[in-house]
Amino acid sequence: MDTIGGYDFEMLMSVRDYELDVQGIVNNANYLHYMEHTRHAFCRDAGFSFDAMHSRGIDPVLRKVEIEYLTPLVSGDDMISCLSMRREGPRFIFRQDIYRAVDKEPVCRANITVVCLENGRLTRGDILAEAFEKYLK
Amino acid sequence: MDTIGGYDFEMLMSVRDYELDVQGIVNNANYLHYMEHTRHAFCRDAGFSFDAMHSRGIDPVLRKVEIEYLTPLVSGDDMISCLSMRREGPRFIFRQDIYRAVDKEPVCRANITVVCLENGRLTRGDILAEAFEKYLK
Amino acid sequence: MDTIGGYDFEMLMSVRDYELDVQGIVNNANYLHYMEHTRHAFCRDAGFSFDAMHSRGIDPVLRKVEIEYLTPLVSGDDMISCLSMRREGPRFIFRQDIYRAVDKEPVCRANITVVCLENGRLTRGDILAEAFEKYLK
Amino acid sequence: MDTIGGYDFEMLMSVRDYELDVQGIVNNANYLHYMEHTRHAFCRDAGFSFDAMHSRGIDPVLRKVEIEYLTPLVSGDDMISCLSMRREGPRFIFRQDIYRAVDKEPVCRANITVVCLENGRLTRGDILAEAFEKYLK
Repeated sequence: MDTIGGYDFEMLMSVRDYELDVQGIVNNANYLHYMEHTRHAFCRDAGFSFDAMHSRGIDPVLRKVEIEYLTPLVSGDDMISCLSMRREGPRFIFRQDIYRAVDKEPVCRANITVVCLENGRLTRGDILAEAFEKYLK
Repeated sequence: MDTIGGYDFEMLMSVRDYELDVQGIVNNANYLHYMEHTRHAFCRDAGFSFDAMHSRGIDPVLRKVEIEYLTPLVSGDDMISCLSMRREGPRFIFRQDIYRAVDKEPVCRANITVVCLENGRLTRGDILAEAFEKYLK
Repeated sequence: MDTIGGYDFEMLMSVRDYELDVQGIVNNANYLHYMEHTRHAFCRDAGFSFDAMHSRGIDPVLRKVEIEYLTPLVSGDDMISCLSMRREGPRFIFRQDIYRAVDKEPVCRANITVVCLENGRLTRGDILAEAFEKYLK
Repeated sequence: MDTIGGYDFEMLMSVRDYELDVQGIVNNANYLHYMEHTRHAFCRDAGFSFDAMHSRGIDPVLRKVEIEYLTPLVSGDDMISCLSMRREGPRFIFRQDIYRAVDKEPVCRANITVVCLENGRLTRGDILAEAFEKYLK
């Protein structure tokens, strides 16, 4: 696979035609779907298990999304979905950018803020930080 | 609300534009979404709780869908989603038909087969039959 | 319908169970779907036609979404989806907030930036501004 | 890629977590999405262009779906989505079966009926038959 470089994680995905809207471009909400899928693949890749966390009473929760749309994907497009992670106190910020595979044209870029709840209450996030230690130096 | 009549349950729903595909009509898979929403509303209306069932180890499971597409819904359409229920041994058959609200034109019609698992194994469905007794005479 | 007040437009919507994810809460991307549906209902209500615009070569396009998630919606919830609109030069900013209907608890709030393309090129947005004149004073 | 064999077309797809419902299994409607994506990939592979057809006034339209659910897909699963095509007069029947990639366990199987409209009226389907000649002997 072609890579973009400079991210903690990259993966290739394909547009599926039912994700298009009536204008023939991928509907805006689907980019959040792509990004969620990428975060989960990253977590799996990093050995992080949502289930194991959950059974300890700990749940990562989405708090905020800022996304800019640059170039729409269309039918038949492949994309490279990229992710980097950093910590700001109790908040974990995922920088998530998507590029069109064929020419590496930027499609959209987002900052996605996740916090960690323990039995429903906000934590400092130390357990999550430990699990992703190597990405947060 | 206008009604169709002759069904166990009817409800009004609206097309949301993100359900359209590139041809400007509701994508075929979304009719299954509408029908699932209707079954759940019917269950809630009948006092049936998936959660309560689940905590007794009992889960209704979709086994089969037969759906015919007659007239596509488009942007701005409202629909009347209708449901009747019958039992054939361990199988519960939901007859689910959707009509365009404005002129009662048939949009699609389906037979949807549900069975009941108890701790993962097929049951005769007696508990479900009891919960929906009044619809199954 | 109960109203929140202080917005240009409000509408009632219901959670559909297929919008829930595995945690039993509405998946984060679906709030963008709700908000898109609300913008389109607002446009229809205001007499604005995407089709008529499109046939003049003019297309509103989503440029940016900032959304904060406060309280998740769950199965059976109704919501009041609210919208106000303002203009900043060529950009139209939709303030879109969703409240849980039963207790008016804030669910999420967003700023959504739309620009107007004419034959694919960015415009000053004067035609859109004219169509929504009464909301932009 | 592992193959199943005996079909006109096979492709590999991955479950994305937002396709799961609250029971942790892929929501029933999403299998129709997978199958649509597979049909479109098959068409592209066969050199068939929906756009080119459409500009001649010809549109393939879904008429009927019969689908049986055997084993649910869950988070992390890959699938092999298989398709064969045959003709019955004006109707084109797609046999579409999905298998779990890891062990080739059948997930669901469907018969999907498509007809061909020309300027909105049912055709005998000869143009479609010509385009897919090599699959219909």
